Amino acid sequence: MPSFSLQSLASIVGGTVVGDSSVQINNALPQRDAVAGCVTLADSSQQAVKAQHTPAAAVVVAEACNDCSLPQLIVSDIHAAFIKLVLVFRPHVVVDRSNDPTRISETAVVDPSTQIGSGVQIGARVMIGANCTIGERTVLHPGVTIMDHCQIGDDCEIYPGCVLYPDTKVGSRVLIHANAVLGAFGFGYRPQNGKHVRTAQLGWVELHDDVEIGAATTIDRGTYGATRIGQGTKIDNHVQIGHNCHIGAHNLICALVGIAGSCTTGDYVVMAGQVGLADHLHVADRAMIGAQAGLMNNVGEGEVMLGTPAMPRRQKFVELAHLSKLPEMRKEFAGLIKRVEQLESQSNTSTIQEREAA
Amino acid sequence: MPSFSLQSLASIVGGTVVGDSSVQINNALPQRDAVAGCVTLADSSQQAVKAQHTPAAAVVVAEACNDCSLPQLIVSDIHAAFIKLVLVFRPHVVVDRSNDPTRISETAVVDPSTQIGSGVQIGARVMIGANCTIGERTVLHPGVTIMDHCQIGDDCEIYPGCVLYPDTKVGSRVLIHANAVLGAFGFGYRPQNGKHVRTAQLGWVELHDDVEIGAATTIDRGTYGATRIGQGTKIDNHVQIGHNCHIGAHNLICALVGIAGSCTTGDYVVMAGQVGLADHLHVADRAMIGAQAGLMNNVGEGEVMLGTPAMPRRQKFVELAHLSKLPEMRKEFAGLIKRVEQLESQSNTSTIQEREAA
Amino acid sequence: MPSFSLQSLASIVGGTVVGDSSVQINNALPQRDAVAGCVTLADSSQQAVKAQHTPAAAVVVAEACNDCSLPQLIVSDIHAAFIKLVLVFRPHVVVDRSNDPTRISETAVVDPSTQIGSGVQIGARVMIGANCTIGERTVLHPGVTIMDHCQIGDDCEIYPGCVLYPDTKVGSRVLIHANAVLGAFGFGYRPQNGKHVRTAQLGWVELHDDVEIGAATTIDRGTYGATRIGQGTKIDNHVQIGHNCHIGAHNLICALVGIAGSCTTGDYVVMAGQVGLADHLHVADRAMIGAQAGLMNNVGEGEVMLGTPAMPRRQKFVELAHLSKLPEMRKEFAGLIKRVEQLESQSNTSTIQEREAA
Repeated sequence: MPSFSLQSLASIVGGTVVGDSSVQINNALPQRDAVAGCVTLADSSQQAVKAQHTPAAAVVVAEACNDCSLPQLIVSDIHAAFIKLVLVFRPHVVVDRSNDPTRISETAVVDPSTQIGSGVQIGARVMIGANCTIGERTVLHPGVTIMDHCQIGDDCEIYPGCVLYPDTKVGSRVLIHANAVLGAFGFGYRPQNGKHVRTAQLGWVELHDDVEIGAATTIDRGTYGATRIGQGTKIDNHVQIGHNCHIGAHNLICALVGIAGSCTTGDYVVMAGQVGLADHLHVADRAMIGAQAGLMNNVGEGEVMLGTPAMPRRQKFVELAHLSKLPEMRKEFAGLIKRVEQLESQSNTSTIQEREAA
Repeated sequence: MPSFSLQSLASIVGGTVVGDSSVQINNALPQRDAVAGCVTLADSSQQAVKAQHTPAAAVVVAEACNDCSLPQLIVSDIHAAFIKLVLVFRPHVVVDRSNDPTRISETAVVDPSTQIGSGVQIGARVMIGANCTIGERTVLHPGVTIMDHCQIGDDCEIYPGCVLYPDTKVGSRVLIHANAVLGAFGFGYRPQNGKHVRTAQLGWVELHDDVEIGAATTIDRGTYGATRIGQGTKIDNHVQIGHNCHIGAHNLICALVGIAGSCTTGDYVVMAGQVGLADHLHVADRAMIGAQAGLMNNVGEGEVMLGTPAMPRRQKFVELAHLSKLPEMRKEFAGLIKRVEQLESQSNTSTIQEREAA
Repeated sequence: MPSFSLQSLASIVGGTVVGDSSVQINNALPQRDAVAGCVTLADSSQQAVKAQHTPAAAVVVAEACNDCSLPQLIVSDIHAAFIKLVLVFRPHVVVDRSNDPTRISETAVVDPSTQIGSGVQIGARVMIGANCTIGERTVLHPGVTIMDHCQIGDDCEIYPGCVLYPDTKVGSRVLIHANAVLGAFGFGYRPQNGKHVRTAQLGWVELHDDVEIGAATTIDRGTYGATRIGQGTKIDNHVQIGHNCHIGAHNLICALVGIAGSCTTGDYVVMAGQVGLADHLHVADRAMIGAQAGLMNNVGEGEVMLGTPAMPRRQKFVELAHLSKLPEMRKEFAGLIKRVEQLESQSNTSTIQEREAA
């Protein structure tokens, strides 16, 4: 790794140095991973004080911290600055290939009927079927498989091992992580003579602009038409989206979520990890579904749902509160039974006394 | 896309036209995806009325609907007809290669000791190891990896990126979706000197005839013998089946289900999404496990189980009903305590009065 | 398959035969998979008795069983012996390539800047980017993709379809199963003008020595630094580990677990299947998290947690016990209300009588 003086790094990120600006820096790493000679970052004075106890040689801060003896690089936006510093030392992490000429690996297998835009990068062992179109500056990493009749927009990036089944449509600026699968058959069968017979699986998957898809995520094709992911929606790893779902714009769908067939969502919906949706549900705009919740019913606009079966957050909190008080309540209940028994025995006694008195 | 008159489509699917039979049709799409010039479908008169509000130029119906002004194509089985129409416009969606001669991509790597049946299709970048047999008319899509000593039957289709570990046995008419993994090691370790030491993982995975496996699903090999999936069983995406499991015939196992090692199931078992099974359980014929349920015990024939820990459906419903009434019960309980206190104070008063009276 | 006399197998595994030692054996299979002519195993006398009802020709036992009429091969450690027997008949299941010379498939694509250790095996269609190092005797199975600047230690085995993003660091004796993905971007976005804008994803994934990773498992890279898996930790299939997590040594993490970003664990932590962790949690040494539990808070040393939201096992058992008694309690409660009503009516009567008496 090359090294730079802290002063020269300050020029690169537009900051000022407090302390020894000649100290030589050889990497940019967070505190937990800090090694001797690196610059680290601190987003508070406490963090700056803690940085002294790491092997780091300097620290990026938003304000000078008197209680930190390390040389400090003061900048207005520590994350923007730290990103620049990381790229000084590890420039290969973000490679801008948008101005590169078209490059098609000689080990790629591309059907001649397919149209490739200018500036496209096609890696080793990529397979592209017949009648596809690949937009400008799109990057297909090694080992991607694009089956027949797929359409991919401009400035997309598709990581190794992804599989796009026939007819998949992808907008522009779409990012698809490794081993994702778009367009496998929906899980639809009808019983016939004791067997499960597959129903029609003739549709496709459609990702609108600025969608991001996590590693190993699977989205099934529609029955006759689209399974659709709306503009700007981001989907994490290991998510399963069933056939005919129409997911709205700007949703956030976390890892291991399973959405059964024909569900629809509005815009800005958030689903936390491991959420499950039964089929044919609608989740309206800005609803939030808590981790591991299991939805059995539609969800209204802006609602926050928790639990299995899922219920509104407030109701779930009330239920949990009552549940936690059950042991105490049962104890009180046993006490109350005794008190009633006591009253009953007194009442019997009085009644007997009254009878006797009468 | 070519276009056809509605009348000519009626001849193809064996239906009759009500309305303008000369209208030109350029695609077959469900209502949600309808575009100008397409034919769509409606499985009820309400749906037929709704079809008027889409850009579709005609609609496939089972019965003429007077309240729908679109040209109507009347057929006895709308889904059978619509499938034919989709294939008129998008014939590449279902390709019958069963009569094609054997085709092995020149970029495939096939060990010479492996036997390839007649009519087999081997796509680009497929890798087949030593001593395998591939049955007749089986299709291996691009990028499939078949390791040594695998046996694959006739008329199978294996999608890109699937990995079959050594010794995997696959019956006939088996469909395996992209990036599925058959035969990775079971998750078995024994402690030894503070380390986890892997136990023997010497078995294999065995799929019987007519099994279907979803995208990214993983099935681990047995310890010494088979992890087995019975005839006609269908498994969705992202399912995990542990080592030594024997899954029965005609099961339906939905997405993101996890089945721990050495479980067995009878026939016609259904598991909804995200179900989990502890190891060594048996689920008997026709049992149904509700979404997200967590099984800790065996399940009897035909039982329906819900919840974590899973219990029979009726019991779960009773529990949920009682849970939902807890807040009300606690209120009543607080009221009852007051009433008992009241009675106690009266009783004390009477006792005192009685004592005084005595 | 070749066949061997039971006596000759006894010599191979160092055991003694009771019964006909000349019987010819053609395979080694567990009882459930036994076929005519195979040797099977029994880990108790009951199992030995049961073995008679399989087609097996002989049985491996730890002690002679008089109630079993099959020829018996008696050994001190039945599993050690049975492993040897399996390998007699299916030697390809475990192949020791550690003394083989370096072998690089001519269909592999390896950047010339990458350093390959001695004895490395690189399978068909492997892709290795620039500036990587591959340690000695490491096996890369067909179709593995290693992106730029990865470092892989000695004696590793990486199965087909795995994708290592740039900068991934892998220790020695690490096993990675098929289609696992290391180093995809963390699921981190910040809102900006109604869009989700991806935050920096500039870190890497780091697996320490003796780690094992299951099929289709995904581990996201850190923000600026490492997502780290500690020495000897074993991770099952379909696990999702978020960005910046630091998992300790010798953890066991079962299938379909999802760990959100920035979590840390101590050593010897166990997570059962489908567990979920919210972000930024710490799970201390030797804690155990039960199947499907959803953690919302830190977990102390050695604690056992169950349920969603997760609570200590004892507390969960108390809650479940109280829940199961709710129906009975509600019945008793209704009875108690009647008894109190009865007392109240008596009390009213007495009061009236007293008033009248007064």
